[in-house]
Amino acid sequence: MKNRLMTPGPVPVPPDSLLAMAQPMIHHRTDKFEKIMAELPDLLRYVFQTKNDVITLTSSSTGAMESAVVNLLSYDDHALVIGGGKFGERWGKLCEAYNIDFDFIDVKYGNAVDPKLVDDKLRSNPSTKCVYATLCETSTGVAHDIQKIGEIVSKYENTLLVADAVSGLGAVDLKTDDWHVDVVVSGSQKGLMTPPGLAFISLNDKAWEAVEKSDLPKYYFDLKKAKESAKTNQTPWTCSISLILALRESLVKIKQEGLENVLARHARLASATRAGIQAIGLELFASSPSNALTSVKVPNGIDGKKLIKYIEDRYDVTFAGGQESLAGKIFRIAHLGYVDDLDIVSAISALEMSLPKFGFKVSFGEGIRAVEEVLSNT
Amino acid sequence: MKNRLMTPGPVPVPPDSLLAMAQPMIHHRTDKFEKIMAELPDLLRYVFQTKNDVITLTSSSTGAMESAVVNLLSYDDHALVIGGGKFGERWGKLCEAYNIDFDFIDVKYGNAVDPKLVDDKLRSNPSTKCVYATLCETSTGVAHDIQKIGEIVSKYENTLLVADAVSGLGAVDLKTDDWHVDVVVSGSQKGLMTPPGLAFISLNDKAWEAVEKSDLPKYYFDLKKAKESAKTNQTPWTCSISLILALRESLVKIKQEGLENVLARHARLASATRAGIQAIGLELFASSPSNALTSVKVPNGIDGKKLIKYIEDRYDVTFAGGQESLAGKIFRIAHLGYVDDLDIVSAISALEMSLPKFGFKVSFGEGIRAVEEVLSNT
Repeated sequence: MKNRLMTPGPVPVPPDSLLAMAQPMIHHRTDKFEKIMAELPDLLRYVFQTKNDVITLTSSSTGAMESAVVNLLSYDDHALVIGGGKFGERWGKLCEAYNIDFDFIDVKYGNAVDPKLVDDKLRSNPSTKCVYATLCETSTGVAHDIQKIGEIVSKYENTLLVADAVSGLGAVDLKTDDWHVDVVVSGSQKGLMTPPGLAFISLNDKAWEAVEKSDLPKYYFDLKKAKESAKTNQTPWTCSISLILALRESLVKIKQEGLENVLARHARLASATRAGIQAIGLELFASSPSNALTSVKVPNGIDGKKLIKYIEDRYDVTFAGGQESLAGKIFRIAHLGYVDDLDIVSAISALEMSLPKFGFKVSFGEGIRAVEEVLSNT
Repeated sequence: MKNRLMTPGPVPVPPDSLLAMAQPMIHHRTDKFEKIMAELPDLLRYVFQTKNDVITLTSSSTGAMESAVVNLLSYDDHALVIGGGKFGERWGKLCEAYNIDFDFIDVKYGNAVDPKLVDDKLRSNPSTKCVYATLCETSTGVAHDIQKIGEIVSKYENTLLVADAVSGLGAVDLKTDDWHVDVVVSGSQKGLMTPPGLAFISLNDKAWEAVEKSDLPKYYFDLKKAKESAKTNQTPWTCSISLILALRESLVKIKQEGLENVLARHARLASATRAGIQAIGLELFASSPSNALTSVKVPNGIDGKKLIKYIEDRYDVTFAGGQESLAGKIFRIAHLGYVDDLDIVSAISALEMSLPKFGFKVSFGEGIRAVEEVLSNT
């Protein structure tokens, strides 16, 4: 069987990007490599929809999140964290690790934050240094309204908006500059269609001012060092050369398709997936679903872990389960990155054929009918 | 022309390891991937010559060095840093970043530390928590006597020996357990013949006790989290899947050759390189040279940067220049990882043919004669 990867990171990687990694190793402190690195900033700025610096780090995305804490904050600063899932809450864990005082907006899993609550918190604490938000909460499949949150945060002159766009970037629209998002964090293995192991952070001038003042300890994730090295198309530490080569291929692919088209494709595939899920008789988990992935409630009486294990074993289609408190209760189908129409057909078909084995009645072809109606008409 | 990479990281990567990365992406939270991850601990322990845990991190080696500071030390701890080059000194910079009080043994570049000085420092400050040492100082090509330092540090019950074996591991003998090295740090792109982007740290029980007590802030590099995840063949954050696949291939290759043979090969290639360099009439820089790389003094009147640029442009052989204060004064030829006899012949030949262009007289074939004498007789 052929594995079909429908997970919200890693996502399938285009063959050209995979093959770029199979080339003989090259050295990073050479003109040859610097020429490649020189192409990245513009390509990344294009996807990030920003004129700002985008720094590339050799780490998982969590490393870039940590860099957005240790470089922006100082010991006495106050932060605001928006919850709503494992990844929103991770901002809080990072603040705790560095003993940063923070307010927390608890958002029910499956829901998006009410942006008004951000305004309330900032009004009562206008010295808040950073608001840590999430564009697409991968654990629940929810898209938060970063545009509205950006509008609110930009009224507070001391406050930076930091958005985790790890799974959202390149799948969900994020007009970094227009929406006043001061800092954006992302990773390679989602919308950027590259293997995991690289992370990114964009910062505007206001954010760099905070970096200058920050007194939290850091070394590997020191963004001033990274910015300085980037001037000569370098990184302070030996970077993940193979992944950089793959990244370049994937970014060129995005540029060729055009970001608007990429986003429209994600919207279309998301819409088809949701239609298919509902036509099967399943229920969506997210009240404001993201175009990166669709989270689905596991029907009563079915063990969600067993369901996705069966689908993987029988059809070699990989879905993601629920994480932590959502384990077994939801499953997640990503339509993220290098994914096309018939991938969605395959995914919904595998699901249709598997559910009856767990006692859930399905009219074969009903889900696919709904998928095809969306796909063929948009 | 064909690039011949003779640099101390990255090193050439075996084709099977490169091709492993060109496979379609797989998901990391699957049985398939966990089976691969399950093979790593024993393979890594074999190369690390230890029974201890070896943790795999998605970062450059500097990240693993940082993990050896933030996980082992607490705010009030005292450390001892052995200098002697850019990488030894990096331990000091890491301690400074976390405001750790430390003693520093300044070692002249090109020399190895006198282990007696370590004893002196520890005697005057027996509460020292960590001695940060370097097996192979990549910036100078020096091998430090970790065996002797281990003997000394093991007499101090409160003190841990932490060795940077980033470029040394798999090239220079390091009997981690027998030599009482409590913590060893390494990276993927040197003796382990894998692209850069993974780093490793091994810790014995004494070191884990320090981890339990450590109060320095950390999150991404939290080794307790990594250890916990490793119990189920996982990592706390999405790991660099492609590099893990390459790493497995390369580690299997090392195991098949046999670590003793791998180390003997490095010793032989190092010996041939040194003989060739001296036969050409050049001078070695390191007083106790490492088997991972040979550092060579640039003759008076020659610009070392121009020399290695010429060799790269004309013969596509990549040597490494000197770093920071050694820039232009030395160059470095690595015989590290996936390198064989005729690679050394090629490297010395390119050097022989290039030196006359810079006014340095060479009897063509003299260096190669010396190389061949060593290679054919050992």
